[in-house]
Amino acid sequence: MATVIGGASGGSSPSIFIFLERSTMKTPATFYHAGCPVCVEAEHQIAEALDPDRYEVELVHLGEQKDRIAAAEAAGVKSVPALVINGAPFHINFGAPMSALKS
Amino acid sequence: MATVIGGASGGSSPSIFIFLERSTMKTPATFYHAGCPVCVEAEHQIAEALDPDRYEVELVHLGEQKDRIAAAEAAGVKSVPALVINGAPFHINFGAPMSALKS
Repeated sequence: MATVIGGASGGSSPSIFIFLERSTMKTPATFYHAGCPVCVEAEHQIAEALDPDRYEVELVHLGEQKDRIAAAEAAGVKSVPALVINGAPFHINFGAPMSALKS
Repeated sequence: MATVIGGASGGSSPSIFIFLERSTMKTPATFYHAGCPVCVEAEHQIAEALDPDRYEVELVHLGEQKDRIAAAEAAGVKSVPALVINGAPFHINFGAPMSALKS
């Protein structure tokens, strides 16, 4: 969507400032972790490095939010930390297997 | 650093546009891959998702740039695809072991 906010009349031709508002629909990115050292580093270095203009990052601690384990497994997550973007699971290094979270 | 680029004289008080230039020192992020399907997906979904304002992403195809294998291993990369940020290696899923790239 384009928003015209007025012009500057200085100089020969009027300049009109048009601010094009980029689509604000952000891609959801879910970072599943269990609070382990590998998880914390991946969170700081990768989850927090995603472009905030294009991605809405949700951090999910599966050790504390056991109700989210089923959704993580349904998305293909087999270990944590893992980032799910556009339905695709990306396991980052290896912190712990999902089985360890279910005990 | 602040750059004053002039003002608009419309309205009661002159408005001065000050564009504050944020620090342009970007963090280097090296994405090592070998062109495999796992690599290509990780490249599109993660390497390209990093915030371009804060990160300078370099894509390195280790199958083609064999001279970069030593540096990747020195950074702790053991398989590809892998992203190295601030000297820390993050293996993303599993595409191929480094040994496969050295044959």
